[in-house]
Amino acid sequence: MKDKVNVGLLGAGRIGKLHAENIAYNMPDVKIVAIADVMLNDETKKWADGIGVTNLYTDPDMVINDKAIDAILICTSTNTHADLIVKCAKAGKDIFCEKPIDFNLDKINNALSEVEKAGVKLQVGFVRRFDHNHKKVRDVVASGSLGKPHIIKVTSRDPAPQPMEYVKFSGGLFMDMMIHDFDMARYLSGSEVTEVAAYGNVLIDESLKSIDDIDTAIVMLKFENGSIGVIDNSRRAGYGYDQRTEVHCDKGCVQVSNDVPNSSMVSTAEGVFLERPLWFFLERYNNAFISEVKAFVDAVKNDRPTPVGSIDGLMPVKIAIAAKKSLKEGRSVKISEI
Amino acid sequence: MKDKVNVGLLGAGRIGKLHAENIAYNMPDVKIVAIADVMLNDETKKWADGIGVTNLYTDPDMVINDKAIDAILICTSTNTHADLIVKCAKAGKDIFCEKPIDFNLDKINNALSEVEKAGVKLQVGFVRRFDHNHKKVRDVVASGSLGKPHIIKVTSRDPAPQPMEYVKFSGGLFMDMMIHDFDMARYLSGSEVTEVAAYGNVLIDESLKSIDDIDTAIVMLKFENGSIGVIDNSRRAGYGYDQRTEVHCDKGCVQVSNDVPNSSMVSTAEGVFLERPLWFFLERYNNAFISEVKAFVDAVKNDRPTPVGSIDGLMPVKIAIAAKKSLKEGRSVKISEI
Amino acid sequence: MKDKVNVGLLGAGRIGKLHAENIAYNMPDVKIVAIADVMLNDETKKWADGIGVTNLYTDPDMVINDKAIDAILICTSTNTHADLIVKCAKAGKDIFCEKPIDFNLDKINNALSEVEKAGVKLQVGFVRRFDHNHKKVRDVVASGSLGKPHIIKVTSRDPAPQPMEYVKFSGGLFMDMMIHDFDMARYLSGSEVTEVAAYGNVLIDESLKSIDDIDTAIVMLKFENGSIGVIDNSRRAGYGYDQRTEVHCDKGCVQVSNDVPNSSMVSTAEGVFLERPLWFFLERYNNAFISEVKAFVDAVKNDRPTPVGSIDGLMPVKIAIAAKKSLKEGRSVKISEI
Amino acid sequence: MKDKVNVGLLGAGRIGKLHAENIAYNMPDVKIVAIADVMLNDETKKWADGIGVTNLYTDPDMVINDKAIDAILICTSTNTHADLIVKCAKAGKDIFCEKPIDFNLDKINNALSEVEKAGVKLQVGFVRRFDHNHKKVRDVVASGSLGKPHIIKVTSRDPAPQPMEYVKFSGGLFMDMMIHDFDMARYLSGSEVTEVAAYGNVLIDESLKSIDDIDTAIVMLKFENGSIGVIDNSRRAGYGYDQRTEVHCDKGCVQVSNDVPNSSMVSTAEGVFLERPLWFFLERYNNAFISEVKAFVDAVKNDRPTPVGSIDGLMPVKIAIAAKKSLKEGRSVKISEI
Repeated sequence: MKDKVNVGLLGAGRIGKLHAENIAYNMPDVKIVAIADVMLNDETKKWADGIGVTNLYTDPDMVINDKAIDAILICTSTNTHADLIVKCAKAGKDIFCEKPIDFNLDKINNALSEVEKAGVKLQVGFVRRFDHNHKKVRDVVASGSLGKPHIIKVTSRDPAPQPMEYVKFSGGLFMDMMIHDFDMARYLSGSEVTEVAAYGNVLIDESLKSIDDIDTAIVMLKFENGSIGVIDNSRRAGYGYDQRTEVHCDKGCVQVSNDVPNSSMVSTAEGVFLERPLWFFLERYNNAFISEVKAFVDAVKNDRPTPVGSIDGLMPVKIAIAAKKSLKEGRSVKISEI
Repeated sequence: MKDKVNVGLLGAGRIGKLHAENIAYNMPDVKIVAIADVMLNDETKKWADGIGVTNLYTDPDMVINDKAIDAILICTSTNTHADLIVKCAKAGKDIFCEKPIDFNLDKINNALSEVEKAGVKLQVGFVRRFDHNHKKVRDVVASGSLGKPHIIKVTSRDPAPQPMEYVKFSGGLFMDMMIHDFDMARYLSGSEVTEVAAYGNVLIDESLKSIDDIDTAIVMLKFENGSIGVIDNSRRAGYGYDQRTEVHCDKGCVQVSNDVPNSSMVSTAEGVFLERPLWFFLERYNNAFISEVKAFVDAVKNDRPTPVGSIDGLMPVKIAIAAKKSLKEGRSVKISEI
Repeated sequence: MKDKVNVGLLGAGRIGKLHAENIAYNMPDVKIVAIADVMLNDETKKWADGIGVTNLYTDPDMVINDKAIDAILICTSTNTHADLIVKCAKAGKDIFCEKPIDFNLDKINNALSEVEKAGVKLQVGFVRRFDHNHKKVRDVVASGSLGKPHIIKVTSRDPAPQPMEYVKFSGGLFMDMMIHDFDMARYLSGSEVTEVAAYGNVLIDESLKSIDDIDTAIVMLKFENGSIGVIDNSRRAGYGYDQRTEVHCDKGCVQVSNDVPNSSMVSTAEGVFLERPLWFFLERYNNAFISEVKAFVDAVKNDRPTPVGSIDGLMPVKIAIAAKKSLKEGRSVKISEI
Repeated sequence: MKDKVNVGLLGAGRIGKLHAENIAYNMPDVKIVAIADVMLNDETKKWADGIGVTNLYTDPDMVINDKAIDAILICTSTNTHADLIVKCAKAGKDIFCEKPIDFNLDKINNALSEVEKAGVKLQVGFVRRFDHNHKKVRDVVASGSLGKPHIIKVTSRDPAPQPMEYVKFSGGLFMDMMIHDFDMARYLSGSEVTEVAAYGNVLIDESLKSIDDIDTAIVMLKFENGSIGVIDNSRRAGYGYDQRTEVHCDKGCVQVSNDVPNSSMVSTAEGVFLERPLWFFLERYNNAFISEVKAFVDAVKNDRPTPVGSIDGLMPVKIAIAAKKSLKEGRSVKISEI
């Protein structure tokens, strides 16, 4: 077992900064040795100084090739993930990579095969698996106390649409947003998705039609173990981040509701008011972001498998591609077709 | 306006008895003049006496042709509904008929055209529209305060499977059970269903395979107004009757949870315990059964349209047929194909 | 066992009418033979006709002395209760009397001793004991599964103040309103109250000061079994009828929350909205009013003790007097002092 | 404004360690310069090293007289608080002191007067004011949107009794446990307590009688602004840490319920199960402990008043003494008597 893990960070955008701060303030056994960001500016330098990191680069290779570094967090834009994974693997570094690995299956498969060849660890950033609520649903299902799963349900609605600049390069609703829910479906059911059927529409922002995307969608899933499931997504809930999961099993049902900033109930002549759900993923999955990196560090320190590995990086992308195909062709699509 | 409505009852099984008792104990402005039941036995006679009805027959024509009767409640087995509707219509009686009208579209269309020809009223027994919870969801959607509907969700799970003897002649899960949810979907969205896609499986009772039925199903729906929806059904929830609906709209979401016998919460070292949902439809839709007949009586008394008319009897059957077709063919099926 | 119970009704005000309708529409084994009301007017006559009662009097003696009548419901104004109980007892009638029996202990004791002498049944109208929620709390406590009670809590707030005309003759907050909660405390704990301490104030309606009454109060209670309790009352909740009870025991806590007209939750950018509690006692204790009279009828029919007897009519009045004394004297007052 | 605050810690027991770790991991602008603990052992040294503190002493004066130190956290046993406050004040250090300051009013008054004389800041560790739930209740009341407060309610039950060794020197239930709730009552109402009446009993642990303590208590309160309140305490809830507050105002009510580890609901044939409340104060007020020290640091850095000052350290002790007196004398006791 290593006493301390030295990590390097690639990409100091919103999510990269989040992981770095979580490490700095919550993981005394991890040291951020170096950070690379192609857009390295004064603000980033000041921020890095604040968390005690002074090795700053624009070139990721400077981090990847640093001998002192055990593991690397890839938090760059999606289109760079696969190449960086390959480089890290070849350099013998354990890898934490934000989701998705790529939109392209060949690039993913190539990256994963390099990871396997190098024998390094890979964890993909499906953060919701580390959430107290969804994890509880999985734990109940996995315990077997309710028998086998029959129906898996995931509701996932963003509070407000992402900016068009983001959406344009995001891979579309299935690849950017519902990909988390495909992961949830696999995680909660403990079974592989074999087939999907998708319905979707543009109900919020007409301009999405010009980029052939949708903002509202429902996808049905079949699982290897015979259970069936459904996911519903909206780019605009309005009331906050709606993140609910439910698994109905042979002997009963386990479900979780949204988290709120406090449990207050205000009763007046006008009505009874509760707090709205936490606004978005930074608030909602705040602790889960810490837990996922802790889990990665634990795997590195103790040379154990990561909890979200290569297959978990691959399958949601396949499902997203199948969902897109189903929407276009108006038929149920088998994952084996992809 | 009539002061008092005289009704006849056809079929004194579970649901017929329920309606008769509701009338006897809750509707002073309605008189049950006669009852016909093909299986008329001593127990039924005693029961009828208890609610003050003495004109008892085995032949429905004796009731249908009774000049004193204004309206007739058809609570016989499904395969007799269409013929009895035709007879009642020809006799000029207003009709309340339990759902579904029939499994066969030609028989339904014929019955509905006789109703139209005769100019009598018809109400179909989709009782859930009169439930305090689902009605509230509809009211919020209909008020327009949340803007246009985007996603309609219906969860409907029976506490325990019906006996095989019942299921065998029930028309199958889509026709017997989900038909209520198809009605809910149309009701809540305020829009017509145009297309469905179904996933289903046998996960509870293997013997269903021999009659080509399923016990667990998810169906996606497209609506004329652009919104999309999903229904999930299970023949066995185990914990009671799971009846939840949810409509997500442009500006927010309205949803209802299950009803319980009391609001108790017991907290001990072992956990926190709430009451289970009310067991089945008799408990859950207890008041709704009264409200739907009151609404029918109101329509008859005041010569107003019934709240659940011919089109509402026809469409859910079409949707059920489409869902069955989708399940078989592995593709999305348009209602216009049916 | 009697097949049918013949009852007479004294007082056809709001509560008398309610009981009569509940009997007419829900209890086929009970017949209302006669009604007496000092203010008998056309509206009352029409109403009585509607529920099939034609023997109408202004003189209660006409009802009390009717040989055909088994039992009598006393729903007149409080100041007449004790005398009418005595008359009914002497006439050998079983008695259901609305709460409180009287404000004066001597009159109560005299009435109760006549009841005992005559060997007739008496039930006092503490309707909340028949409520699905509070009854569940009692059932859990009585089952012993949580061990002995430690802390009994009752929250009881009216939606809006009663008119001054009513309050003036009501006996004041402790006698008119909290008397129900004193009954609840005894019922839930299964133990006799031995001592009380009261705090109260006028915070809603200044004019109460002129009649030496209060509108906001908290009363602590000691029970014979060692447990302690607290009641809080307000004449104006504003949001509806707040009726919550809670018993904390050796091994845990059982509590109930308010009933609502439906379980809807509306989530928007403005907040999350639930329904307000049911408005007042007619809505909230709707079913309990039926159950209490059914329980009385059952006792009469089967010659069993009533569930809310003489001692239950006496003790809450004693506690109310003690609470008033405590408020005046600024000290804890023993019930044995009263 | 200071850039960085240097603090010293007195007492490295459970709560001292908690504050130190919260500072080390969550407050980059605070440096723990030195720690004194009379029982300084190897385990404590190792722990201190882990959070980067190397100046370790057994003598508190070594910390108090350290010129480099701006502020001191007093986390020693209660009987030392008052003296240490005096020393810190004389040394010109700002002070954060755990509650209560002392059991003795003279010692408290003396300490507070030295604080005032020295012009240093004092914050008393009433951590619940920084809890997301209770703070929300206060914010709603303080906003005035519900009008003036009428009834303040606090439920506070420990999961399990503290060890007799602790209780013996704790000052008893009112001084050790309910003192937090006295503070809550003042905080939530925004008004001073003027009078109390107490009921209490030994229902859990008979051995408490030998030290003249109780384990179950209810205390009523009168406030300067005319509102009234009630607190209930139990040393053993069994199901976790029961921490609920409620304020009923002129126009409505605001209340908060317990926090749970996750929002799961498991429904089976046996019942519906929720998670129990978080177990005890370390779990429940986890974030509040961070927030209170951040608030103290903020006051020190920006030379602003602390949010919980001298009067807040004094009044709850007075109320506790009055409650004890009320329990003994069976009468309502004015705070002005103390």
